[in-house]
Amino acid sequence: MKNTIDELKAKGKAAKEASHKLAYISTEIKNKALENIAADLRAKSKEILAANKLDLKSASANGINETMQDRLLLTEARLEAMAKDVLSIARLPDPVGEMFDTRTMPNGLLIGKKRVPLGVIGAMYESRPNVTIDISALCIKSGNAVILRGGKEAFHSNLALAKLVQSAIEKASMSVGSVQFVDNTDRSLVGEMLKMSEYIDLMIPRGGESFVKFVAQNAAMGVVAGGIGVCHTYVDATADITKAVPIVYNAKVQKPSVCNALDTILVHKAIAQQFLPLAARELTKAKVELHCDTRSMVILKNQKGLILKAAVKADWGKEFLALVAAVKVVDSLDEALDHIEIYGSGHSEAIVTEDYTAGMRFLNEVDAACVYVNASTRFTDGAQFGLGAEVGISTQKMHARGPMGLKELTTYKWLVFGNGQIRP
Amino acid sequence: MKNTIDELKAKGKAAKEASHKLAYISTEIKNKALENIAADLRAKSKEILAANKLDLKSASANGINETMQDRLLLTEARLEAMAKDVLSIARLPDPVGEMFDTRTMPNGLLIGKKRVPLGVIGAMYESRPNVTIDISALCIKSGNAVILRGGKEAFHSNLALAKLVQSAIEKASMSVGSVQFVDNTDRSLVGEMLKMSEYIDLMIPRGGESFVKFVAQNAAMGVVAGGIGVCHTYVDATADITKAVPIVYNAKVQKPSVCNALDTILVHKAIAQQFLPLAARELTKAKVELHCDTRSMVILKNQKGLILKAAVKADWGKEFLALVAAVKVVDSLDEALDHIEIYGSGHSEAIVTEDYTAGMRFLNEVDAACVYVNASTRFTDGAQFGLGAEVGISTQKMHARGPMGLKELTTYKWLVFGNGQIRP
Repeated sequence: MKNTIDELKAKGKAAKEASHKLAYISTEIKNKALENIAADLRAKSKEILAANKLDLKSASANGINETMQDRLLLTEARLEAMAKDVLSIARLPDPVGEMFDTRTMPNGLLIGKKRVPLGVIGAMYESRPNVTIDISALCIKSGNAVILRGGKEAFHSNLALAKLVQSAIEKASMSVGSVQFVDNTDRSLVGEMLKMSEYIDLMIPRGGESFVKFVAQNAAMGVVAGGIGVCHTYVDATADITKAVPIVYNAKVQKPSVCNALDTILVHKAIAQQFLPLAARELTKAKVELHCDTRSMVILKNQKGLILKAAVKADWGKEFLALVAAVKVVDSLDEALDHIEIYGSGHSEAIVTEDYTAGMRFLNEVDAACVYVNASTRFTDGAQFGLGAEVGISTQKMHARGPMGLKELTTYKWLVFGNGQIRP
Repeated sequence: MKNTIDELKAKGKAAKEASHKLAYISTEIKNKALENIAADLRAKSKEILAANKLDLKSASANGINETMQDRLLLTEARLEAMAKDVLSIARLPDPVGEMFDTRTMPNGLLIGKKRVPLGVIGAMYESRPNVTIDISALCIKSGNAVILRGGKEAFHSNLALAKLVQSAIEKASMSVGSVQFVDNTDRSLVGEMLKMSEYIDLMIPRGGESFVKFVAQNAAMGVVAGGIGVCHTYVDATADITKAVPIVYNAKVQKPSVCNALDTILVHKAIAQQFLPLAARELTKAKVELHCDTRSMVILKNQKGLILKAAVKADWGKEFLALVAAVKVVDSLDEALDHIEIYGSGHSEAIVTEDYTAGMRFLNEVDAACVYVNASTRFTDGAQFGLGAEVGISTQKMHARGPMGLKELTTYKWLVFGNGQIRP
């Protein structure tokens, strides 16, 4: 069955309607829905894996590469991991209903903000079918309805998982309209979905940089734009080398394919001679390729076994997502701050220093979602920050910044309790 | 002198540069700048009033009506009121620098959010020259740079006031680039300014509904969209008439030209016969015209002296901004809730009731920035809610909702204090 634009709008309308009730149902029902999803992921694994086989078959027929095929792949073990993730979302505190900023005004009005869901979340994502479960669970727990639109390559898996979710929430007496699935992967529907500000309160795009940018620029509703990180680690003149080398190594090597991984090493000239050979030796063990500016090249060029290239202009401000790092020697903290201001993406930036004032200046002056002293930028993550589950990492300044947990899928409304007050 | 697009961009760049330092200057300097502005509004009143005369002269020559001319008019008394407003902003607590959500993670990382300014605020506004001072003062206190773009009709007044602000902040050792004024009222520059997301973090449009909508739909940066309020007051079956009549009267009559004024009275059929004649009698004293549905017309049509019209479809969901109210009799709380969901604008909605469950249902189920039980919707206001100064009232759900004070002109960044932590 093909969804026409009208069918898409009908899904929007149904989600909006479901969202009204979802806004104030009990935590018990939401948790029951999540427990049902986890149980069904275990009970219906055969069906899900059969649907997944169809996607893998077309992927293989279409000559899709192995990395992409691995992203698509579901197994009993992966389904079990998904079930466990859903159960851990069930165990997180419910963000909805919290009252804050409450006060009684001199005229006796009791006023305060009540945390409420945003309404309807739109999710557009590529390849990995676990996102269907992941986003559904986060939306259910935060009391939002959701419209899911996955990629073509994972269509059968996503459809099977969405149906599983719909049946699981219905068994918990939650409106089945709360989770909508767009069962048409025609690209033109993306544009239509981005116009539906009447029905969708927030759009979450998950995919490559160009896709996320396209959504951010074209959506009529709010967008959580993120997932792009050009991250610097600045090794200051006074850095403790025994901290600096492991921090740089960890930030670059521990998981190079993600947005909080290190891209550029900035190093103060006073410590470059001491730091760079040690760091380069360690990084080389992990096969990291270094793109060096002139001064760092002078220091490293005679060291054996390194993978060195002369840095080109495009290396500054580049998100490598691979075992590559740009390296630059700077004259001062100020030069490092200027470099980060020009080339940073506002994601995660770190300084390694033993100088109190340098550390505090870095924290004050760097304009990014997460600013570190003496730690790896790899910590920018909802779980690592103690937020529980994570919707994504926002590099925008409005609404939410950095790792977004359940709370960031909510807004508030002012409640005003009066007893006949009128304004004089 | 005419600003070309390049000159506009140069102002954007200068504001962005100024914003970096403004983000962490002391509250003392910001308050000193505000005190200087207040002092200069008093000391330089002759110059300002002379500039204002030029605007009034062209207004009169262009046949602009008296209400509009009054909006433009500055007097010694109005300048004094502006000075006092600036001083009260100086006395408000500085929102910047607050640390919150701080915690120490099991690995010893100390993490927390620090409240920081958004960066650069763009302000586009019409007629009233006091907005130049008002927005400048709010931005200075919240540590944001600002680009002001006022309307053509107040050009000379706005220019004089902007220069006053620039000189006052310079005397406080604040970068003069922090407050930029677009001294070109060519409409085409509006479109250019809306594209400047590189330099402007948040756009605040102040003006009529179509202008605000245009900005919201066309801006590449975040927009505080608000100022439009279709407000309902629902008089429930169990309402205390001695509360209901004054609340409805106050919400409609106290200041009908503003967004939190009442537009539609919904009344339960069980109390309509008792409530409507009393309310209509009071409203008539203030010359309020009532647009009645069939059932309310039956109740009111024989009452003498009332100004009645049959309601037409367009009356539901209309923001009257005048001494007009639509009236509808409903069968139940559910019908009232449905009506508000369809026709409300998500601004301010009220119920008058003595029934606990009806009140709680209304608070839970109405999706609006401010939801009232037994009070006038006219209280939706930063000062009335205890926020001090107000930037505007947001009817959107992202970032901020309802009255926006200084805190809503800020964002946060995560600070992470480590001692060598790496991610396992």
